[in-house]
Amino acid sequence: MAHQFRNDLAALKADLDGVALEENPALVKQKSRDFFWYSPVLKAQLDHITADLVATPKDEAEVIRILKAAFQHEVPVTPRGTGTGNYGQAMPLSGGLILNLAEMNKVKAIFPGRVIAEPGAVIAQLDAETRAHSGQELRLHPSTAKTATIGGFIAGGSGGVGSIRWGGLRDIGNVLRLRVVTMEAEPRILELTGWELHKVMHAYGTNGIITEVEMPLTTAYDWVDVLVGFDDYMDAVRYADGVGNADGLLVKELATVAAPIPYDYFLRHQKFLKPGQSLAIVTVAAHAVDAFLALTSRSKGEVVFRSDTAEDLKGIPPNYELGWNHTTLRAIRVDPSITYLQSMYPPPHHIEKIEALTRLFGDEVPGHLEFVRFDGKITPMGLPMVRYTTEARLEEIIRIHEEHGCPIFNPHRYTLEEGGMKQTDETQLAFKREADPKGLLNPGKMIAWEDPEFDFTSTKTFLFPGLQQAS
Amino acid sequence: MAHQFRNDLAALKADLDGVALEENPALVKQKSRDFFWYSPVLKAQLDHITADLVATPKDEAEVIRILKAAFQHEVPVTPRGTGTGNYGQAMPLSGGLILNLAEMNKVKAIFPGRVIAEPGAVIAQLDAETRAHSGQELRLHPSTAKTATIGGFIAGGSGGVGSIRWGGLRDIGNVLRLRVVTMEAEPRILELTGWELHKVMHAYGTNGIITEVEMPLTTAYDWVDVLVGFDDYMDAVRYADGVGNADGLLVKELATVAAPIPYDYFLRHQKFLKPGQSLAIVTVAAHAVDAFLALTSRSKGEVVFRSDTAEDLKGIPPNYELGWNHTTLRAIRVDPSITYLQSMYPPPHHIEKIEALTRLFGDEVPGHLEFVRFDGKITPMGLPMVRYTTEARLEEIIRIHEEHGCPIFNPHRYTLEEGGMKQTDETQLAFKREADPKGLLNPGKMIAWEDPEFDFTSTKTFLFPGLQQAS
Repeated sequence: MAHQFRNDLAALKADLDGVALEENPALVKQKSRDFFWYSPVLKAQLDHITADLVATPKDEAEVIRILKAAFQHEVPVTPRGTGTGNYGQAMPLSGGLILNLAEMNKVKAIFPGRVIAEPGAVIAQLDAETRAHSGQELRLHPSTAKTATIGGFIAGGSGGVGSIRWGGLRDIGNVLRLRVVTMEAEPRILELTGWELHKVMHAYGTNGIITEVEMPLTTAYDWVDVLVGFDDYMDAVRYADGVGNADGLLVKELATVAAPIPYDYFLRHQKFLKPGQSLAIVTVAAHAVDAFLALTSRSKGEVVFRSDTAEDLKGIPPNYELGWNHTTLRAIRVDPSITYLQSMYPPPHHIEKIEALTRLFGDEVPGHLEFVRFDGKITPMGLPMVRYTTEARLEEIIRIHEEHGCPIFNPHRYTLEEGGMKQTDETQLAFKREADPKGLLNPGKMIAWEDPEFDFTSTKTFLFPGLQQAS
Repeated sequence: MAHQFRNDLAALKADLDGVALEENPALVKQKSRDFFWYSPVLKAQLDHITADLVATPKDEAEVIRILKAAFQHEVPVTPRGTGTGNYGQAMPLSGGLILNLAEMNKVKAIFPGRVIAEPGAVIAQLDAETRAHSGQELRLHPSTAKTATIGGFIAGGSGGVGSIRWGGLRDIGNVLRLRVVTMEAEPRILELTGWELHKVMHAYGTNGIITEVEMPLTTAYDWVDVLVGFDDYMDAVRYADGVGNADGLLVKELATVAAPIPYDYFLRHQKFLKPGQSLAIVTVAAHAVDAFLALTSRSKGEVVFRSDTAEDLKGIPPNYELGWNHTTLRAIRVDPSITYLQSMYPPPHHIEKIEALTRLFGDEVPGHLEFVRFDGKITPMGLPMVRYTTEARLEEIIRIHEEHGCPIFNPHRYTLEEGGMKQTDETQLAFKREADPKGLLNPGKMIAWEDPEFDFTSTKTFLFPGLQQAS
């Protein structure tokens, strides 16, 4: 079903006089990429991908001009923040235009409990502004907070630091309002709230361009980073599960990483660690440190690092840059053969499931868990590292997880469905029909649009025809 | 082994020159009571109880003088805040002296995330000061916040409004530090933190006098009270369970009350209600109202009251004064034959348990649930009302709950153990040996102290010998 788009770039450019455009192939290619290369599978599939040009609007009016012209001249448009995704979320499979929203980065208004910002605001900068204004910060951020944009996080992410308190972005209340421009002959501006937000969240920009976000804020406490070392990884897992379920402890990040990953790959923290040590990575409010240490004193763990008492923090990254996909990044930097999976260990038997898989795979799949709230329950989500050999073995590892009752959200797929729930999202599909009737927004990412007959129960990987053509 | 105390009041008074003392029998009796009369059982047992005199220290130095003199002259001492307990927590079973801490009510210091206060600070006043100072408030408060003291809440309470976010007082991190004076020849001052806090928390002042508290604070948002009406009580229960498990919704209070209680007994709200309507009682942050309403729109409930849009709030109490023991209070005010129980419905089959008991008892036991976090899980705690007939039937209702896997924390008992876990708290017992060697602090409340041979597995009620003597 993938269309051959007219992609009339000359006509498009003629219509966009005054809009910042970039055509230098090296710079365009740079803006056409993300961290897809974490996956050897995606690296092989997507490495050649590039857009034809990049447009950098300075405001919503320019976004509307660009979409209107692109609609008329049938130029595919792939929106992008700063490209910190991991699955090619913002990579233009059909070429065309990259809509670079990084310059629409203003924080517009701050209130008790909420902030209104442009989509290109960098998350750490947004947090700095809300903290300075009124001691507030975002509930959730990715480990890439220092570079990622808030719009990109909403369009391509699912949760992160703070999810131990607040759940994921998709949980109602974690995004308050999105302003979205449609891809039509006359682009419309929509204000979405409540359940309507799900039309465009985590849709990779396939069905509308976010031009303004309203997000809930929480209190920006002084956060203390603590690393707790364990000789046995499962002791670290049980400990973290207990910390997560301690209702009176104000914790912002809670993860475990199995040996030998910490000592071997957390090079900036190596001086605090012992070889063979597994870690619990915890970020806790300053006023909760005493209670946290009391809890920790009853575990088998040993506090090996505290940011509030460390002599010198120079060169030491914050704990959140040891967690989520930064764990993987640190491992890959030392050993490029490493890749990863995304998994889930549903309660109440999550500990048993983790133990079984840990024993089964040993050092081929070193454990990494991020503890989050999921439907009200403290739930370990996995980002286990994989010492990659072949794609077939990777598929086998996925299958074994699923056979153990642990769903895999496959980070080696560039489509929404294959990376997610492996079924059509009818809400997003219906909204795309309305907001992007020509299918020009980020083509190839929504299987339900490209191939309505695709069989999600098969083991076959979706192959976007546009991608083949571009190869 | 209840002692006969010397109770030498004349010598005590001679030693307390300059301390505010009250001996007027009517005023002393008034300060010897709490809300024990919620229970027809306790009303019969405790109605005659009174102390001999009341001492009202103005600072810790006076507390020490009083304890030292009382120790020397063997006068029992029962500490008291404002007497908002429900089980005779602060009632002097052996007479002697009431230590009225209500005048030690200063808020001493406020920091990000914590407050230091004297024990007699009234909770609503404390919250008003921390809100004015830096937009902060206590994590937890009882429904009696407008009159209850912070010290009394810690010594006699277990949780309340805010427990849906933070769990109970006993959860580590929900009390940061307590300063305690012991009952010895030379009273010592102890600073307790971490696990040591459990030595004196919820001990009814049996093993030390709290003279200073340090509590965690959270953000004082604008809170919106909402009442959601349901035709079927179980729909209200399932709805509240869903709200509690919605991780992105910032909720401070979440309860359900079965028909006919709301219409019949919530007289100030009656104009908003229909006969036969069950309610979900919710308090939600202003910036979470939109998301909350989106969630509610998918339920069978109807929003019947919102404090943020109500035309006139004059005479309308806040939602927290419809919940917890205020629910019972409002019912008893209209129908004095009503009493209540305290129960728990452990997940994951909590809904089924509630449904079975609701069907079984019908209008004899109208449902009232307070949803809280308990060991990390959203858990409904019950404060069901009981249309009281006989003590035997009350015991039978308790037994039927327990047979359904729903523990009862019996509010018709004045001892720590019978109202709680029905076993000796070794930590508190050991600390009492150290901090109150003569057993002068609030005698009769800790069975483990009074009768080490008491059989907690029997169905026999503990009868404090001192209480018999006073009868």
